Amino acid sequence: MVNVPTIKLQPTGQEMPQVGFGLWKVTNETCADTVYHAIKTGYRLFDGAFDYGNEKEAGQGVKRAIDEGLVKREDLFIASKLWNTFHESERVKPITKTQLEWWGLEYFDLFLIHFPIALEYVDPAVSYPSGWKTPDGSIKPIGAPIQETWRAMEELVDEGLVKNVGISNFQGALILDLLRYCRIRPAVLQIEHHPYLVQPDLIRLAKSEGIAVTGYSSFGPASFRELDWKKAFDTPTLFEHPTITAIAKKHDKTPAQVLLRWPTQRGLAVIPKSNNRDRLLQNLDVTSFDLEESEIQAISGLDKSLRFNNPIDYLGTLPIFA
Amino acid sequence: MVNVPTIKLQPTGQEMPQVGFGLWKVTNETCADTVYHAIKTGYRLFDGAFDYGNEKEAGQGVKRAIDEGLVKREDLFIASKLWNTFHESERVKPITKTQLEWWGLEYFDLFLIHFPIALEYVDPAVSYPSGWKTPDGSIKPIGAPIQETWRAMEELVDEGLVKNVGISNFQGALILDLLRYCRIRPAVLQIEHHPYLVQPDLIRLAKSEGIAVTGYSSFGPASFRELDWKKAFDTPTLFEHPTITAIAKKHDKTPAQVLLRWPTQRGLAVIPKSNNRDRLLQNLDVTSFDLEESEIQAISGLDKSLRFNNPIDYLGTLPIFA
Repeated sequence: MVNVPTIKLQPTGQEMPQVGFGLWKVTNETCADTVYHAIKTGYRLFDGAFDYGNEKEAGQGVKRAIDEGLVKREDLFIASKLWNTFHESERVKPITKTQLEWWGLEYFDLFLIHFPIALEYVDPAVSYPSGWKTPDGSIKPIGAPIQETWRAMEELVDEGLVKNVGISNFQGALILDLLRYCRIRPAVLQIEHHPYLVQPDLIRLAKSEGIAVTGYSSFGPASFRELDWKKAFDTPTLFEHPTITAIAKKHDKTPAQVLLRWPTQRGLAVIPKSNNRDRLLQNLDVTSFDLEESEIQAISGLDKSLRFNNPIDYLGTLPIFA
Repeated sequence: MVNVPTIKLQPTGQEMPQVGFGLWKVTNETCADTVYHAIKTGYRLFDGAFDYGNEKEAGQGVKRAIDEGLVKREDLFIASKLWNTFHESERVKPITKTQLEWWGLEYFDLFLIHFPIALEYVDPAVSYPSGWKTPDGSIKPIGAPIQETWRAMEELVDEGLVKNVGISNFQGALILDLLRYCRIRPAVLQIEHHPYLVQPDLIRLAKSEGIAVTGYSSFGPASFRELDWKKAFDTPTLFEHPTITAIAKKHDKTPAQVLLRWPTQRGLAVIPKSNNRDRLLQNLDVTSFDLEESEIQAISGLDKSLRFNNPIDYLGTLPIFA
């Protein structure tokens, strides 16, 4: 079994595996099997979200693995996220409980605010996952401040529904402001992170505040080609980038493994997804070799401040990164 | 007299001149005279701040102009800013009153939160302007959230001490969050803005929310060479940039005038500073000619996302733009 290092989270001291499985874009048909096989392969961290629309199926995969005695609940680290439509304080606990029911769990190890964006409530019975739009097709921001949402997140910890709370797609001054009013500090910051979007200042900020960083979309444009986004096709794939392929060749690893070692060696967690069993193992086995400092710098040097997951690009509004 | 267009502020409907005089780096020795002569030249907007350390002298210049009958108070638009050390709710009103006393004014037309940064209180009697550090030389962030500070800013409006409230050096998600909890919306967003730092998404955000944008450091690196910053010397000056000089030549204007027309023609306000009387007039006279759309785009094309006024660069901490 692959040995996966862990990151100690603040303030709980709980250990989070540095490599996990990301459930974004895992289809409902394959999700239960994929999660089950990922556990069999050695994955212990699963990163889900209301928005991914597959929490029931992910939970079935977990249940099968536990029922078969592959793992116990406490061996797993299960993360999920609060969608934008549940930012009002009275919405947070009910939807968290619903998401826990879908998973068949009594607690999440980590629960993140998915985006610093508050949208009008949409009943999951009417539209699931509802995405960015109300059933009538419009995007309706509401006035629930992050402070209100964070207070409700903290109550989830008080009540034992979640062990750690975190934030996703937050930046600079917004994080510093959250740190001013929080009672329970965010344990994790999850951000888009790949060699075309390095964000060294943001990572330094998190580090200096004792917040663990999880990078998503580690493969850059490849993660977004599945969505058929023009920008993702207009950007050269990292799998064939000469800097990446040369380093991969030298270490006798795949480009994907280099792209996952670059963040993990710098202390970040990663949550790649794969539908292919061989790659599932390859992606997990990314902490058993080390890049040279010069190689890490060469990869960081590919930075273009190029962000794919930017609502203003695909919605034309909600410019959180402006 | 030069005719300076105005921008109608929300929600008061008050008109703010599109070109003003920025008091940053104006020395105490020259400040009263400079302000007086600027008024004589036709300037009506003055942009000051606690941090600039020259509010008394600026007020003397204003007084002289009013006493001589050059202008009435209501002809002027006077802006100042709340420094980082006064973010706690109980600090806001007292220091605003003190700043008004320094100016010799009964109200500010605009009062801005200078940075989304809250630092430990420093008594102005002990250190003025105190800058980023406590008298013992350390940088001490405190836990006053922006929401607390904004509430106190709103009360300044309630009490008639300021007509409009605004924000400076705020971005994306932090602005969207402020808009969720504010009772009085920010009238103005002041940001670093020059051809090397265009920030189109941020400007679009402000526009779509009815927030006027004032660009500072319109000349880019030149504004920061006075501070002896290496980055400012390492960046080619915009005054000699071939794109700028070619456009200036074509319109028979100075490069500075082109650099001020580029934002004003796009609806922004600007607040240049000059110690030279000829340039004082030239800087004000920047709305009497128009750039071609292709010229505006050529200037916007110089964007390098290059920010000079970034605390992480000069303090090594407070990464508000990360």
